[in-house]
Amino acid sequence: MRIDCLQYANWSEKIFRQMRAGGVDAVHVTIAYHETFRETVANFEQWNRWFEQYPDLIMKGQWASDIDVARKTGRTAIFFGFQNPSPMEDDIGLVEILHTLGARFMQLTYNNQSLLATGCYEAEDSGVTRMGRQVIKEMNRVGLVVDMSHSADRSTIEAADISQRPIAITHANPHVWSPALRNKKDDVIRAVTANGGMFGFSLYPHHLKGKSDCSVTDFCEMIARTADTFGVQNLGIGTDLCQDQPDSIVEWMRVGRWTKEIDYGEGSASNAGFPPMPHWFQDNRDFGNIESGLKAVGMSEAEVAAIMGSNWYRFFKDNFGAGAVA
Amino acid sequence: MRIDCLQYANWSEKIFRQMRAGGVDAVHVTIAYHETFRETVANFEQWNRWFEQYPDLIMKGQWASDIDVARKTGRTAIFFGFQNPSPMEDDIGLVEILHTLGARFMQLTYNNQSLLATGCYEAEDSGVTRMGRQVIKEMNRVGLVVDMSHSADRSTIEAADISQRPIAITHANPHVWSPALRNKKDDVIRAVTANGGMFGFSLYPHHLKGKSDCSVTDFCEMIARTADTFGVQNLGIGTDLCQDQPDSIVEWMRVGRWTKEIDYGEGSASNAGFPPMPHWFQDNRDFGNIESGLKAVGMSEAEVAAIMGSNWYRFFKDNFGAGAVA
Repeated sequence: MRIDCLQYANWSEKIFRQMRAGGVDAVHVTIAYHETFRETVANFEQWNRWFEQYPDLIMKGQWASDIDVARKTGRTAIFFGFQNPSPMEDDIGLVEILHTLGARFMQLTYNNQSLLATGCYEAEDSGVTRMGRQVIKEMNRVGLVVDMSHSADRSTIEAADISQRPIAITHANPHVWSPALRNKKDDVIRAVTANGGMFGFSLYPHHLKGKSDCSVTDFCEMIARTADTFGVQNLGIGTDLCQDQPDSIVEWMRVGRWTKEIDYGEGSASNAGFPPMPHWFQDNRDFGNIESGLKAVGMSEAEVAAIMGSNWYRFFKDNFGAGAVA
Repeated sequence: MRIDCLQYANWSEKIFRQMRAGGVDAVHVTIAYHETFRETVANFEQWNRWFEQYPDLIMKGQWASDIDVARKTGRTAIFFGFQNPSPMEDDIGLVEILHTLGARFMQLTYNNQSLLATGCYEAEDSGVTRMGRQVIKEMNRVGLVVDMSHSADRSTIEAADISQRPIAITHANPHVWSPALRNKKDDVIRAVTANGGMFGFSLYPHHLKGKSDCSVTDFCEMIARTADTFGVQNLGIGTDLCQDQPDSIVEWMRVGRWTKEIDYGEGSASNAGFPPMPHWFQDNRDFGNIESGLKAVGMSEAEVAAIMGSNWYRFFKDNFGAGAVA
């Protein structure tokens, strides 16, 4: 089973066919960075159109059992998430509405301070806000997973503790391996995984040691060492694949409508666009390279299967439905 | 089984308890008259709050099978509908979004011309529009039932013919019995029922012969005669109960935001508010009066059961899911 817990590609029939060629059973796709509720609904609408248009390649994913259906019918199940809480605006009632429409992951922040918590680019991290506590409780109730990939350390640790259900960092790497601002320090990874949460390894070059030149062996060695430290059961893949996107999209991701000035995020003025992906992970057909890389660094069949998909499957199964909340 | 296919009450625990006392298994409730998409979503949110608050009395209804669950657990299943296409605005993609959120009936017009068809108060009825044809097709595809209760005759007959699935007039009475503008002429009722569509009898006094003074015998006699003419299998109840509403609400229903002038609709300057309900149908506890009334005018047990609920049950079962569209 292969599950990728983060992609934001410029979707097309080509990419859906590559998912099939790569044996990808499920993908968590981002449908909002800075979108309002209404704009996010338009993105759900666009996906409904694709489901209608490519019924042999993709299907809407709402529950882990949809992955079983997808596998039986040779399709990829598409699960939805937001990189920012902007789709819920300032209205806690929208948490359940968005879950009903199919949202399964929501980041509490995207780099900046939000109504809910602090993003990883802020100078000060004041932790989870008053509204943030209420929203985490509501997300727990309906089965919308808290994702802290772009959040600051204190906010992430607090969210892992406040949440009555496991949370996730869908796409990042350990800071100890590659000290990017977006990569996560050990105490952050521990706070998330110790509570049953998931950590997804990213292929986005700015998160890799050596960036685009990172080798598959280096990447897989890092995964094996992370499994030694935190346990293999809470680790998976979240490639952050942004295939076929024009550079205007990385600018939208970085500046949205919150500033009139350019902000280069993990890039720089001289390297403002999407960085080239490593040669061994260009698109959805390349998951086999990660799988064989993990075996090559000495992980067992069962460990490799856990990382490649069955951990996310278990996590989806436990965390997308309504939950009893204390 | 008792199903009421139209209510728009000022919802409260009191009314939910009356539904239980009256043995009402399912109610189609109106959640939009003139609301935009976002305002309609706020109304879905309000119902989510009520489902959370009164889990022993009510539950969200999406499929006929939810009525079975409601009956087994002693609750009333609440199904959602709109009296106007305003929630979908000018965006056909919202048809599926609204269905996903739980909408199961949508009127193509509310008294006035809409983007889709002509309402019953317009001087000219130009029939189903270009967009209306597209929207009917999309409603057929996803399982959102076309309701023509407040539409003009030609538009209704055209909609019944264009639609690949049965349509409904959820709440009205035969014009031949009481010649109100909102009541339906025989050719309209025939167009709807001949294609397997449903006709729901209204208790709204402006639709009754003798208005608030109409007797239960007169009402039930009318039902029996309608069954003689059109067949009992396509008839049900849609009371149009607007319990506990202030008169400001009937004004909202009539004028929305489409005019600055007052429009009295079926009322008049001297009788502008909600008319008093007949003494034998004051609230949800009074469905037994209709049931015994139907028996008293000579309908069989099976015919009475069909009218009181099992016809709507069959219709819900056949028409709320995705459909194959030519």
